[in-house]
Amino acid sequence: MAQKIKLSTIAETLGVSTATVSLALRDSPLVAITTRDKIKEQARALGYIYNRRAASLRTSRSGIIGVIVHDIMNPFYAEILKAIESELDRSQHTFILANHYDSVEKQRNFIETMLQLGGDGIIMSPAIGTPSEDLELAEENGMPAILVARTIDNVNLPAFRGDDTYGISLATNHLISLGHKVIAMVGGTDQTSTGRDRYQGYVNALRKADIEVLPELRISGPRTRQGGFEAAVNFLSLPLRPTAAVCWNDLVAIGLMNGIARAGLLPGVDISVTGYDDLEEASIATPALTTVWNGQSEVGRLAARALLDRLAGSHEPDGLHLIKPEMRIRQSSGPMKPRK
Amino acid sequence: MAQKIKLSTIAETLGVSTATVSLALRDSPLVAITTRDKIKEQARALGYIYNRRAASLRTSRSGIIGVIVHDIMNPFYAEILKAIESELDRSQHTFILANHYDSVEKQRNFIETMLQLGGDGIIMSPAIGTPSEDLELAEENGMPAILVARTIDNVNLPAFRGDDTYGISLATNHLISLGHKVIAMVGGTDQTSTGRDRYQGYVNALRKADIEVLPELRISGPRTRQGGFEAAVNFLSLPLRPTAAVCWNDLVAIGLMNGIARAGLLPGVDISVTGYDDLEEASIATPALTTVWNGQSEVGRLAARALLDRLAGSHEPDGLHLIKPEMRIRQSSGPMKPRK
Repeated sequence: MAQKIKLSTIAETLGVSTATVSLALRDSPLVAITTRDKIKEQARALGYIYNRRAASLRTSRSGIIGVIVHDIMNPFYAEILKAIESELDRSQHTFILANHYDSVEKQRNFIETMLQLGGDGIIMSPAIGTPSEDLELAEENGMPAILVARTIDNVNLPAFRGDDTYGISLATNHLISLGHKVIAMVGGTDQTSTGRDRYQGYVNALRKADIEVLPELRISGPRTRQGGFEAAVNFLSLPLRPTAAVCWNDLVAIGLMNGIARAGLLPGVDISVTGYDDLEEASIATPALTTVWNGQSEVGRLAARALLDRLAGSHEPDGLHLIKPEMRIRQSSGPMKPRK
Repeated sequence: MAQKIKLSTIAETLGVSTATVSLALRDSPLVAITTRDKIKEQARALGYIYNRRAASLRTSRSGIIGVIVHDIMNPFYAEILKAIESELDRSQHTFILANHYDSVEKQRNFIETMLQLGGDGIIMSPAIGTPSEDLELAEENGMPAILVARTIDNVNLPAFRGDDTYGISLATNHLISLGHKVIAMVGGTDQTSTGRDRYQGYVNALRKADIEVLPELRISGPRTRQGGFEAAVNFLSLPLRPTAAVCWNDLVAIGLMNGIARAGLLPGVDISVTGYDDLEEASIATPALTTVWNGQSEVGRLAARALLDRLAGSHEPDGLHLIKPEMRIRQSSGPMKPRK
């Protein structure tokens, strides 16, 4: 099989950034002439021809829009994608998709592939640790990028997500109003902007109600059903057992409820549980899950809209657009039962 | 935005097939010279140039492999995709993905896009009603296609899926062995090869046990949690109420169990339920779901392997490769309770 020479390969051999290579090969005045020549020579030496020919395609629109997220198996992303697809369909775009599983390298490969394919634009929930130059690589080559669900520091691109701090505080306040005082936060990590924001919302609500914030009540873990199911063991064996759990998302909440039920307790009666996202399955869980609507459909629709607007030449102001979450109260949360 | 001229547009204006257009533009001797000339003239008249330039890229491998399925939100497909990705990663392919939602047109757009991009190959679970010429379109243009999960009549391509007839008969036999005689089959459709095979497996098992097959016990419906949840109402109001359900997949089974629990009955005790697929969530459901392992990981791995082999020049025998399903007995199935 013919070896594909990537921009990043050329960049590595010369110790420059991928964005610089990309710009140099397109004769951008942003790169000094001597550097440009060195890069072009190296590209020739490595046999880099594919992309130059592909670049000629870029004079016209390909109709291709790329979407890359952490993992489309997560229904939270799947619901965003559904909204993007339904918005993009209307204007006859072809939609291609990839998972980065939080690998910056996988994500960079996808961006480079999209550039080589002459993609019109890219909608992404960036991998943890994405360097800003990877997004500049897309933008500076005429392929607009829109962020969903997560943001990256020091990058000023249109970004759409729910207001996590506010959303989690809604769920925490709801449990406090039911009389709960020992409330755990279950699932997720603090490595993403989302993680930090959600933990902050939980802390804010507790402090406002004069409830002490105990670090042992933060049970981190995978953002999956399996993660929530396994967290039930830690949750139920805490010395000061919580009467309620604010979960990272609906998947964790559904897993935790299953774990609680296996231990012979009734979720929603013995222990209150809240989710986050309001996935389709939240309302059909047993008990029906109290959760926070996180605006996936809005995030997807607005991101697709923003990209189409860019492609049509308009320039919306960049930056973060926050969608306001809303509480959905169902059967998985109830009044605190006095401890026996 | 520049209008993208598609092969199908040229085909429609001339009343010929897309495959014929594709072949004619590549000067294939399979198309009569007069037809070829007519097609090329029409292509020129419509301003079809993009693809001709893209075609020049096809002399070298792009490293891009496309995967298209009904809906990646369905964890059954997601698990197949995970296995494909993990196999393809090893050889540094870029993986792009699309949903066809059983639209033959969406699927054809994806195939055409893959051809225009110079994709190396395509792995697909074909849309209901896929004409064989759409697959020939890929194959005849040097882009091998591999089928997963579903097959298409009269198409001799490598195809990998579980043995559905056998798998469903395992689940039905398991329920019969527990004493159940009124067993419903819940969820899914008979429009796909999978649907016909599964119903046949259910019928075979009942007949072998001398149990009458009653058409009213076939409750068709969406293959989703929501579908199973909504089917519970029909299921519980049947004049001759079943004591067990063979469900189309794990999602339907989990939804049905939730619906049964809402009606105040205990799934696994009052009514036995079996799933199909053995998704990750089957074992953490409450009660833990008795189900049939459907070999998603094997299907994905073998399909990816078959594609890589083709790209390396080898030619495995075409046709269907069936993976043997296995029973996974857990808590959602139990002995029939005598009717009160």
